[in-house]
Amino acid sequence: MNAQAMWEAMSFLSEYGLLLDQDKLEEWTLLFEPQAEYKVCSRENEEMGLPAALMWCDNRDMLSDRIQSYRNVNEHNFHWARHVIGLPQVLQDSAHQLHFQASYSLFQTNLEGMSRLFSVGRYDFVCSRTPAGLRLLQATVIADTGLVKTLLAAPI
Amino acid sequence: MNAQAMWEAMSFLSEYGLLLDQDKLEEWTLLFEPQAEYKVCSRENEEMGLPAALMWCDNRDMLSDRIQSYRNVNEHNFHWARHVIGLPQVLQDSAHQLHFQASYSLFQTNLEGMSRLFSVGRYDFVCSRTPAGLRLLQATVIADTGLVKTLLAAPI
Amino acid sequence: MNAQAMWEAMSFLSEYGLLLDQDKLEEWTLLFEPQAEYKVCSRENEEMGLPAALMWCDNRDMLSDRIQSYRNVNEHNFHWARHVIGLPQVLQDSAHQLHFQASYSLFQTNLEGMSRLFSVGRYDFVCSRTPAGLRLLQATVIADTGLVKTLLAAPI
Repeated sequence: MNAQAMWEAMSFLSEYGLLLDQDKLEEWTLLFEPQAEYKVCSRENEEMGLPAALMWCDNRDMLSDRIQSYRNVNEHNFHWARHVIGLPQVLQDSAHQLHFQASYSLFQTNLEGMSRLFSVGRYDFVCSRTPAGLRLLQATVIADTGLVKTLLAAPI
Repeated sequence: MNAQAMWEAMSFLSEYGLLLDQDKLEEWTLLFEPQAEYKVCSRENEEMGLPAALMWCDNRDMLSDRIQSYRNVNEHNFHWARHVIGLPQVLQDSAHQLHFQASYSLFQTNLEGMSRLFSVGRYDFVCSRTPAGLRLLQATVIADTGLVKTLLAAPI
Repeated sequence: MNAQAMWEAMSFLSEYGLLLDQDKLEEWTLLFEPQAEYKVCSRENEEMGLPAALMWCDNRDMLSDRIQSYRNVNEHNFHWARHVIGLPQVLQDSAHQLHFQASYSLFQTNLEGMSRLFSVGRYDFVCSRTPAGLRLLQATVIADTGLVKTLLAAPI
């Protein structure tokens, strides 16, 4: 656990949040390894060890499908997203992987320009170290906020 | 004032926030020196130089008592906490101490999964450098938000 | 793009936010180069390439004028500001300049101590490297939140 790992985690998180906020979802999926798992679950379920998730993609193609469907099929309220992600804590740091967590706040702004708090929670990210930088192997989003499923159209 | 001090402050703040958010309050008290002072005051009082505080513990045992009481005695609304802490500013950096400040936002989520903004304000932290890392000597939480005393059950 | 640039951007952003939050607006203007441009625009206009801005100062003197006017002339609701700024992403890093962006959340607290979300958005900052540290050359604030002009008294 050192300054270098902290810097890598911070760079990664800032890119992760800003890609989502700028609606570059396709580019965002490239932060994932092909075999990556992406899971959004409620804090309640996570603490009770219950397996149900609000969104669960167990590889990157599935995540891309989800984005395709979001773009072309799903009906959802139009909004802009804004992530403000807190300082990360490095949990494990090896030659090949980096495991860290960070609190996030996510705001949504609607067509009328009204912003509201949409979700707060914690990212638990296991990344592989690649020549191109960190890539997600296991991304778990543990949401404190109880998200109505129909509102969870875009990834967090 | 250098990158190393910034990194130390960030690591400390991320641990501080995540321990509180994960309800590891007993572990959180170990971030304090035995003789540490922990004080939550309103921005109004702080700016006017008035001494009244919303929470004041002038050593770590007193802080542990407070946690004990929170666990076993106090009646309070159940909630999850979520701190999103901003980038710190290093104010003083010596061989033995590090003084820094950072803005915080604190959200609470209730049993129904509704999240709300609970408090915003500023941390002013003086830490000693120990072999185990930074430890708080003087922790001042200056809350912009006027906190109703009965709601301030858990530390910020 | 390296850890040093990230650290510089973070130090700068923390100072930027804390000076505004502590109402040190005159000191805050010293973070700008004399020829700096400061612009607050809506995300809608920015994405559509429309030039209208909510606040636009094309040099530091103009910014100082604006602060003078805010101090002495404008009537506005009294409030405290609190910026919680996310992790920056470095976009360009040369010997003379640093270009980075970061998401921000801005809260306001009124005289009754009630805090609310005031604005979320993104900073896009081009800074020059000076012996005294980074100084803003071009500061663009792209606000997701639709700000009623009369409410935008203080800079963001």
